[in-house]
Amino acid sequence: MIKLCILGGGFIGRFYAESLIGRRGKDEVKVIYARREDTAVRFAKDYNVPHYFTDMEAAIAHPETEMVIIALPNYVHEEAVHLCVKHKKAVLCTKPLGRTAAEALRMTQACEEAGIFAGYLEDLCYTPKFSKSLASVKAGAIGRVLWAKSRETHPGPHSDWFWDMEKAGGGAIVDMGCHCIEISRNFIGKDILPVEVMCWADTQVKPIDAEDHAIGLVKYENGAIGQFEVSWTFRGGMDLRDEVMGTEGTIWVNSWLRTGFEMFTSGNTDGYLVEKAESSSGWQFPVGDEAHELGYTSMFIDMYEAYEKGTQPQETFYDGYVVNAIIDAAYKSAKSKLWEPVQLTEWRGQVGVKKPSVFTEYDADHWLIKEEILPNGDKKVILKKKITGEILELETWKKV
Amino acid sequence: MIKLCILGGGFIGRFYAESLIGRRGKDEVKVIYARREDTAVRFAKDYNVPHYFTDMEAAIAHPETEMVIIALPNYVHEEAVHLCVKHKKAVLCTKPLGRTAAEALRMTQACEEAGIFAGYLEDLCYTPKFSKSLASVKAGAIGRVLWAKSRETHPGPHSDWFWDMEKAGGGAIVDMGCHCIEISRNFIGKDILPVEVMCWADTQVKPIDAEDHAIGLVKYENGAIGQFEVSWTFRGGMDLRDEVMGTEGTIWVNSWLRTGFEMFTSGNTDGYLVEKAESSSGWQFPVGDEAHELGYTSMFIDMYEAYEKGTQPQETFYDGYVVNAIIDAAYKSAKSKLWEPVQLTEWRGQVGVKKPSVFTEYDADHWLIKEEILPNGDKKVILKKKITGEILELETWKKV
Amino acid sequence: MIKLCILGGGFIGRFYAESLIGRRGKDEVKVIYARREDTAVRFAKDYNVPHYFTDMEAAIAHPETEMVIIALPNYVHEEAVHLCVKHKKAVLCTKPLGRTAAEALRMTQACEEAGIFAGYLEDLCYTPKFSKSLASVKAGAIGRVLWAKSRETHPGPHSDWFWDMEKAGGGAIVDMGCHCIEISRNFIGKDILPVEVMCWADTQVKPIDAEDHAIGLVKYENGAIGQFEVSWTFRGGMDLRDEVMGTEGTIWVNSWLRTGFEMFTSGNTDGYLVEKAESSSGWQFPVGDEAHELGYTSMFIDMYEAYEKGTQPQETFYDGYVVNAIIDAAYKSAKSKLWEPVQLTEWRGQVGVKKPSVFTEYDADHWLIKEEILPNGDKKVILKKKITGEILELETWKKV
Amino acid sequence: MIKLCILGGGFIGRFYAESLIGRRGKDEVKVIYARREDTAVRFAKDYNVPHYFTDMEAAIAHPETEMVIIALPNYVHEEAVHLCVKHKKAVLCTKPLGRTAAEALRMTQACEEAGIFAGYLEDLCYTPKFSKSLASVKAGAIGRVLWAKSRETHPGPHSDWFWDMEKAGGGAIVDMGCHCIEISRNFIGKDILPVEVMCWADTQVKPIDAEDHAIGLVKYENGAIGQFEVSWTFRGGMDLRDEVMGTEGTIWVNSWLRTGFEMFTSGNTDGYLVEKAESSSGWQFPVGDEAHELGYTSMFIDMYEAYEKGTQPQETFYDGYVVNAIIDAAYKSAKSKLWEPVQLTEWRGQVGVKKPSVFTEYDADHWLIKEEILPNGDKKVILKKKITGEILELETWKKV
Repeated sequence: MIKLCILGGGFIGRFYAESLIGRRGKDEVKVIYARREDTAVRFAKDYNVPHYFTDMEAAIAHPETEMVIIALPNYVHEEAVHLCVKHKKAVLCTKPLGRTAAEALRMTQACEEAGIFAGYLEDLCYTPKFSKSLASVKAGAIGRVLWAKSRETHPGPHSDWFWDMEKAGGGAIVDMGCHCIEISRNFIGKDILPVEVMCWADTQVKPIDAEDHAIGLVKYENGAIGQFEVSWTFRGGMDLRDEVMGTEGTIWVNSWLRTGFEMFTSGNTDGYLVEKAESSSGWQFPVGDEAHELGYTSMFIDMYEAYEKGTQPQETFYDGYVVNAIIDAAYKSAKSKLWEPVQLTEWRGQVGVKKPSVFTEYDADHWLIKEEILPNGDKKVILKKKITGEILELETWKKV
Repeated sequence: MIKLCILGGGFIGRFYAESLIGRRGKDEVKVIYARREDTAVRFAKDYNVPHYFTDMEAAIAHPETEMVIIALPNYVHEEAVHLCVKHKKAVLCTKPLGRTAAEALRMTQACEEAGIFAGYLEDLCYTPKFSKSLASVKAGAIGRVLWAKSRETHPGPHSDWFWDMEKAGGGAIVDMGCHCIEISRNFIGKDILPVEVMCWADTQVKPIDAEDHAIGLVKYENGAIGQFEVSWTFRGGMDLRDEVMGTEGTIWVNSWLRTGFEMFTSGNTDGYLVEKAESSSGWQFPVGDEAHELGYTSMFIDMYEAYEKGTQPQETFYDGYVVNAIIDAAYKSAKSKLWEPVQLTEWRGQVGVKKPSVFTEYDADHWLIKEEILPNGDKKVILKKKITGEILELETWKKV
Repeated sequence: MIKLCILGGGFIGRFYAESLIGRRGKDEVKVIYARREDTAVRFAKDYNVPHYFTDMEAAIAHPETEMVIIALPNYVHEEAVHLCVKHKKAVLCTKPLGRTAAEALRMTQACEEAGIFAGYLEDLCYTPKFSKSLASVKAGAIGRVLWAKSRETHPGPHSDWFWDMEKAGGGAIVDMGCHCIEISRNFIGKDILPVEVMCWADTQVKPIDAEDHAIGLVKYENGAIGQFEVSWTFRGGMDLRDEVMGTEGTIWVNSWLRTGFEMFTSGNTDGYLVEKAESSSGWQFPVGDEAHELGYTSMFIDMYEAYEKGTQPQETFYDGYVVNAIIDAAYKSAKSKLWEPVQLTEWRGQVGVKKPSVFTEYDADHWLIKEEILPNGDKKVILKKKITGEILELETWKKV
Repeated sequence: MIKLCILGGGFIGRFYAESLIGRRGKDEVKVIYARREDTAVRFAKDYNVPHYFTDMEAAIAHPETEMVIIALPNYVHEEAVHLCVKHKKAVLCTKPLGRTAAEALRMTQACEEAGIFAGYLEDLCYTPKFSKSLASVKAGAIGRVLWAKSRETHPGPHSDWFWDMEKAGGGAIVDMGCHCIEISRNFIGKDILPVEVMCWADTQVKPIDAEDHAIGLVKYENGAIGQFEVSWTFRGGMDLRDEVMGTEGTIWVNSWLRTGFEMFTSGNTDGYLVEKAESSSGWQFPVGDEAHELGYTSMFIDMYEAYEKGTQPQETFYDGYVVNAIIDAAYKSAKSKLWEPVQLTEWRGQVGVKKPSVFTEYDADHWLIKEEILPNGDKKVILKKKITGEILELETWKKV
């Protein structure tokens, strides 16, 4: 059993609590910290937490605090981590790890030097669908990964600080791009070096300084390409989709808006309220167990198991640092309009990984480009001469 | 923390264990019973269970057994329940409760007389999608339920005794119809009396005596209709779908074959094995966390919480009895080719529930049948005169 | 080029015209008949038809009428056909052919005796998806058909006479069941004898005498089963789905509500009107070319080609008669609560077709029931002893 | 009736013929030209064409040729157009119009100067789904378009010249990007100036010089962004999807791989062949009427109607030129790694279109950023002070 202290009583803190409560888990939230007392009191009451504080350090230092879960706005992550280091408490930090790679690296190094357990709460790398698809990729089901795209769009976040560029560290990219980047990295391989980033970002709709819509491409050393699509301007709910192309297959994951659960309601009935949907009548697409589908339950299981066994969790602070470095490059690129290098002062993966040749030999003199059966039944083979590079096609008339 | 004894080390026993293990739960399997020693030993090793037995009563009577989970073939359920009663152990029984309503009623009454906790392990009434859709129905999202269909088809079960009519108590109806019937009952209302059943059943493909395909209709006292479609002849995987029509809406749930997770694999890669699919290449439709999506985790949480609080679980032995009574009527109907009454010697719900009138008044003299906008923009109102019953339409030319 | 006369200027007559107009076809509507003069005038203007009449016989007899398309209420079909016979004009009749099998048989025989071309306008047996799936079934893609279900439900038809039991000949069964029955017949084989019908029907919601919801099962001589689900109480649009199970495969067709075209609209924009949807905001599921997707264009092409070549179209009056005979049995069954025989005074297909055995031999002594790989990697084979009928399983431990 | 001459007897020429034949159209193919005599003879026989040639100019000049349809490899388009100009024949040209904008502009100007009818055969801007979604966008259903993405990926084209960079003018971008670019242009507005392009392109798998995978972003003057994703490395069939985000809504179109038609086949039946799929067993996703779903029939109807009425078709040579100019910029960008300007020597649309402000006023002092109901029922309003830019949130506790 692990005794937990949650820092932050807002949306994400409550979601973390929901994923622990009522599931017959052996781990318990013992301490809650919130900036405002009414928030802390309410949280303590709602989730049956014995101790509440409005002083962050007091919460961390409390003897019932064995592990700290940081569920605070981005601009307070580093301070919270340093307090955990000071008090030698294991620490889990919500996404993004930092507002910048510099912040993230300091947090990573501080924990490593102090020898405390640190986990990066990247929930979307723990959803049941993601876990199974990653296992399939690792088992070779789709061959070598060529492209890994992740998309997260919705009509915008739920707290004021997200919309404040200074406090959040940016807009939709830092808020949601962090998920998408880490999803792509997992599919392509965490030990493959991200080389450079091209990013388009704009403020298309909202009255804010940060971007509300962005699209980015991340080149990896082995020739694979990562792509993220993020927006706070999407209409119709929350769109969470991943797509992966490999030399031998394809993966499509829809985590939220189309999951095999559809409901039509005329809106003529009293008292029925559809939560978090853009309309309260018409076709709705609910999600069964939201906390589980978003990966929260599996994420905490991995964290607690790793902590108890003394191993690394799947998502570490170092991973959070790499993500931040890619985000930094994305913001630079959005301004410079150039492909910007990913600056990693510390790289723990492979280097010098080349794009492998996957040419298929047709015979001693030719590479095979393609074989196809045409609608009228004809069969064609398209070849390339190895020496001259000339392209030619052979036909086998099937119909006479 | 509850100390558990699982009876049965086969497919379903292992699935139950999977849904408890590795999820940081506080409840523990302490005892395993299997008929064959090698099965018991393997189970104990795989799931770290301290005590194993090949003598069922010894397992139940063991001091570390606080609650018994029956994961045995249908023909042993009653015997196992009576042993739990004898030793005053709380008991959970897999579906179907009995092979017949008579068996189920004896099991229900024995537990109630002994005052032991008894829960009916109807997992498909605990899936995240089902739970949320049932909550929506209860909140009035789709108005009054008119029709509730549930379908479960796949290429057939995994153990010999399922295919033996005597041991199983029947074929696809008793194996899978029990799920479908209880799903419909939940949507229509568990306190609404099931009145009569019409069922078609046939052995279309398999070399067995029992039915491998069946379709049934269940009439409820309030005019709602339940429908089940079950088959062991389906090709393409496992098809688990529910559809509900209400006066104000519709629900469609696809629990297995189309859940927003799609994968194509060329089959050219070595070493990759697709489990439980009919082909190892081409488009695949995996399910993320199978145990969770099938309702196992939520089901056990409900059972354990109810046991500790001293309340009834959502699915009780009495529910299992009602399901068996409907199945009995279905088998009778399949033979007699008649609508057969559901024989419930004990009914604990409402009686005399009439189909409510839901006519909409257009004006003092007319009922509204329908209002429609035609493709060319015309609008029509179709009415019925209250007194004469005459039907007429009024048009409003929108285009001139 | 064929010169056409359309009888009926309402919803269906206009839909037929839409599927001919603006597609660069060589066939032309020359004559329109409608009961009310304003309807006829409007139709003639909208579709550029040179001649209009409010006298049906005058329209049919007109020298510019080469072929008559009956788009009239059910109770006028027979009269219209007899007038075509009298004037020796080729005739196409909308669905259902008659209100009863007796009507349909008289119409069929009258045309055959007169030697005039007669086609049954069963559009849903001509949709692009249906045509391709039927071709796949005939090519053996799913083996022997075991079950063919077709479902059509929506919130009710658009004209007064549909709701009048006398004029329509019934309710949802005769209106939409006719489609479903003929779809199933095509999949199972038009030459396979439909033997008996069980039908549940009820008036659940609407203030009418006819049924607004019905479910029926149709047994065929070869052991296959047809199923229809029809309703005028469905909420959420129009649900048109077919499902077919065969010994070697499965077909699922969704023709209307989920076809890969999805739109969300906030409803905040002025002047935008969603036609034929139940709500004007939220998620919408439009259909591209409605007339084509409903089979109208392909249906008329088949009819005109057959007429010019002097062959039979795919759907004949005789097919319409068989459908009516099945509907008659369905209505009888809904009242008698018995399986009612399909009474065909004239049967032109095969007789004495038995259900073939499809047992798979495992070895000389055993039938194979099933082979399965379990989640833990074990493989099982379930067998039946040919002589004793005993069922047993063989296991191959994959994991040690 | 229009008399047609098709240039090219290969895959696309045959597809064009299929979309005209057997649909009772009044237009007729009178002349076929192919480079190889056997191809010409076979085409003439298959589609009942009276005249065939292996001399292109002779085919164009033939008195039965009223309109020419160019279905030739990219490198012959310009030559063919100039011959049509010389002989004053109306001309339709397949996509892409040219290999470069320079070619396309010469073709456009030559036809305009000669006063001959010229249509650009951009079929994917004529699919039933596209047409209806474009109409919805124009009617305001999704507000102002912010982003329009189009994706076309499959395992590679069917003729040798596609794979030859010189003959094709490039790889996947020029082959398929032309579709995607014109789809986005239509959604965003054809009169909105495309300003600059960023493109990533690589040869990831195939043994060719041209790119087999590319992703591009196109900035439009009004702030909208177009995106194309093209690949010849996709596994699993052909993926044709469009996604549009607007200020008031969303459109998702799947034109090929998921259209509501699904089939499973075990592969155990003899003689059944699945055309154009990557595997002949397992789950298949066929398309009903391929020519219609790909827009061919609607495209030719528009072309012929426009020709007869003397108006412009929806897709003109000028549109083809704009597309080529965007492709040119894409290729430059893929090399330079910079955003490259779209160079249009002639622009016929609007200039100086600014991104409109769509801020929503909350009260005199505040802009509204967002309103949200949280999972626990709380409601929040997030605002921005107009003067200071400060962001704040107001809460209404719903639960006490």
